[in-house]
Amino acid sequence: MATNEHIVTSFDDELNGLAQKIAEMGGIAEQQVGESVAALSRRDEALAQRVISSDKRMDQLQREIEDDATHMIARRQPMAQDLREIVAAIHIANDLERVGDLAKNTAKRVFAIEGNFAAQRLVGGVEHISEMSLAQLKHILDAYTSRDLDSALAVWKRDDEIDAMYTSLFRELLTYMMEDPRNITFCTHLLFCAKNIERIGDHATNIAETIHYLVTGIPLTDERPKKDESSVTTVEYSDADD
Amino acid sequence: MATNEHIVTSFDDELNGLAQKIAEMGGIAEQQVGESVAALSRRDEALAQRVISSDKRMDQLQREIEDDATHMIARRQPMAQDLREIVAAIHIANDLERVGDLAKNTAKRVFAIEGNFAAQRLVGGVEHISEMSLAQLKHILDAYTSRDLDSALAVWKRDDEIDAMYTSLFRELLTYMMEDPRNITFCTHLLFCAKNIERIGDHATNIAETIHYLVTGIPLTDERPKKDESSVTTVEYSDADD
Repeated sequence: MATNEHIVTSFDDELNGLAQKIAEMGGIAEQQVGESVAALSRRDEALAQRVISSDKRMDQLQREIEDDATHMIARRQPMAQDLREIVAAIHIANDLERVGDLAKNTAKRVFAIEGNFAAQRLVGGVEHISEMSLAQLKHILDAYTSRDLDSALAVWKRDDEIDAMYTSLFRELLTYMMEDPRNITFCTHLLFCAKNIERIGDHATNIAETIHYLVTGIPLTDERPKKDESSVTTVEYSDADD
Repeated sequence: MATNEHIVTSFDDELNGLAQKIAEMGGIAEQQVGESVAALSRRDEALAQRVISSDKRMDQLQREIEDDATHMIARRQPMAQDLREIVAAIHIANDLERVGDLAKNTAKRVFAIEGNFAAQRLVGGVEHISEMSLAQLKHILDAYTSRDLDSALAVWKRDDEIDAMYTSLFRELLTYMMEDPRNITFCTHLLFCAKNIERIGDHATNIAETIHYLVTGIPLTDERPKKDESSVTTVEYSDADD
């Protein structure tokens, strides 16, 4: 079963290669998240198009990381910590690729909302939640680079703030729709954008769990306290006529 | 680098073990998708709870498949077709786990919509699109079992029907919201359910792409024609007062 392939690079070189590709994905993901929300705030279609286009590179990098990692496992037969390093790289690449997809979906919605009614007032909540998600993403990528378990756990715990903010934004956007039906289309797109951004926070916590496993060798099995209650949230319509 | 571990099972036995776990995941996923929409139609909270609870088993199976597959790659150093079999199992388990998550999210929304206004009329479109997604899921799992490239490609091509139906449902639900603000909360939850179901179709096409790679050794690089235009769809509000 053993391959006859001649191994010319060291295992550490190969790990560094994976780390570089993940760093590139992380950089693109941060840019996509920031630019997708900026494009939404300013109704900047050119910027939205740039976010959409950059997703190709993310897909390509994820495929490369997975291929490189699989071949490293087959050729090197790594054990324990070495194997965890490689499996962690596959997981993190997968999470970052999904972050890119979510930013791309937000960017696409810029084209649906052009010239829409009362836009600026309504978009504020989305900007706010996206600042938090972007901060979580930056912190978790730093924690991965430095293998810093404490900051990874801090990111993991802080996700409930994003969830709580999303639930409150969900209520707010529903209220705007009820106030004026001209808001409905725009607010529906904003709801999906807000959901995308809340899910980017979930991917940051996935990466935190991967870092926990990488550093300690033990899966983080605690259930994270979820405070996204939007899926069970209702807003009652009240009107003087009723 | 070679391990001294004594290999007592055959490679084929191990592959069969992976296939059995994927078959179990596929069965649970189909049940979750069907039951989540049934729970929504009938506002059946007990059934919704069952869908939510069954997701734990999905997560556990996915972890097991990934662990088993990684250790097979490290121990067996498989090449070509054998390696593709193992990598395909990891990908398909990943897609099925996400299908389970999407069904769970739909099930959670059953608790938000209890006793809601005009529910039955509005839920019909969601039932319809879910029948299509469920059929796609069944077909692609059969195609995987029989390594049937033609039916995998048929599933891949048919996803544009789900996308087109979702775009039309998006418009319809927005229209209901504009007609009567008492529909807004319920229709918003239905919009998220419909989006979940549309994404289940996307996972069926991901599995189709995995089957293509597994059978031919070549990635399916064509861009699938996307007909989900909901992210760029607007519905204008018109009222006699305007």
